[in-house]
Amino acid sequence: MRIDIITVLPELIKSPFEASILKRATEKGLVEVHFHNLRDYATNKYRQIDDYQFGGGAGMVMMIEPIDKCISKLKAERDYDEIIYLTPDGETLNQGIANALSLKKNLMMLCGHYKGVDQRVRDQFITKEISIGDYVLSGGELGAAVLSDAIIRLLPGVLNDETSALTDSFQDDLLAPPVYTRPADYKGLKVPEILLSGHTQKIEQWREQQAHERTADRRPDLLSSDSDEN
Amino acid sequence: MRIDIITVLPELIKSPFEASILKRATEKGLVEVHFHNLRDYATNKYRQIDDYQFGGGAGMVMMIEPIDKCISKLKAERDYDEIIYLTPDGETLNQGIANALSLKKNLMMLCGHYKGVDQRVRDQFITKEISIGDYVLSGGELGAAVLSDAIIRLLPGVLNDETSALTDSFQDDLLAPPVYTRPADYKGLKVPEILLSGHTQKIEQWREQQAHERTADRRPDLLSSDSDEN
Repeated sequence: MRIDIITVLPELIKSPFEASILKRATEKGLVEVHFHNLRDYATNKYRQIDDYQFGGGAGMVMMIEPIDKCISKLKAERDYDEIIYLTPDGETLNQGIANALSLKKNLMMLCGHYKGVDQRVRDQFITKEISIGDYVLSGGELGAAVLSDAIIRLLPGVLNDETSALTDSFQDDLLAPPVYTRPADYKGLKVPEILLSGHTQKIEQWREQQAHERTADRRPDLLSSDSDEN
Repeated sequence: MRIDIITVLPELIKSPFEASILKRATEKGLVEVHFHNLRDYATNKYRQIDDYQFGGGAGMVMMIEPIDKCISKLKAERDYDEIIYLTPDGETLNQGIANALSLKKNLMMLCGHYKGVDQRVRDQFITKEISIGDYVLSGGELGAAVLSDAIIRLLPGVLNDETSALTDSFQDDLLAPPVYTRPADYKGLKVPEILLSGHTQKIEQWREQQAHERTADRRPDLLSSDSDEN
């Protein structure tokens, strides 16, 4: 997989890709992530990429021309499955979207800033608008990092243990059950006895029951689409 | 405001705080963010902070003892309004939660990794569990960065234009209207004439209408809690 990220703050977004799982995925050749500084595509000597919004009001708007130049250059080099704009009014990211995008070959992501990008950019170039949640951030960079992380960890070979991602929360519309590790007794706080019993089948039943209870308690909405669970 | 972030990957999470709005907020003295490497609180010479989970199964679990030591040290130094654990099964972050947290003085955030933290940590030390969305990430660091960004940009004096955050998406349960900037005509793609008209009142009406239409189209759920808008 290849991911191209267009940003005015490449230094902000690079470090998450230089640590942990994303770093390992890159080193294994499972993904390559390229950063493009939008200011390199500015058309004046001040490297300006934003301007006041038409009609007045607070906040700057990112101009269409530098974005057009950058996206057009990339599109001339290869085909993209999706050109994604990170924006609070996009489709809300969930595990299903991450799963689907993890099967693609080339993804482009555009990070907005200030009041966002000129609407004509969205109308002309963007194929998918994604929000990572119902809150506003100072820019799209953290959104692109979150989206990339959610996708990349699903690529075969990225996680050490192939089965690990499949037991995560959301993969089966259930939250994960509680987990415990050593010591079994920490200052009087004890691990549930069932987990120390060695009865694999009973442990599995307990975990399933805990996952259902936790989901029913915290996120009943996840269960409601699955009527035989209610 | 003071934010303390406990993590096994401090290098991963630092860079978003060294750029843009978060950097400016720090330089202005409006917020101070401290990173604590959990491995500094490990109890053996391998700086181990995780172990296999009781009951078997894929994925490691973060141990209670190093976390206890780190959190207890910080709590002895000052009072915390909230000790937050970033986890996919927490309460889903939204703008209202970000607004409320932006009024606090001292926040602590614990970043999970692998299969998460020992459940006893959550039971004993955590006062608030937050998920940034219905997807799984390789760790809590990006979640803590997202939560911090959403909070810090709301602190008075952080954004250049005081009115800017108030016109963001979600602050009034509406998505933001489309925005445009120069040029008015880009390769035949034109800005809506109303925005060039100079009629401030009509422009305001147009924006409100666009915000309602976009919300009804993309996120009718945001309107449903406000019956007179339907």
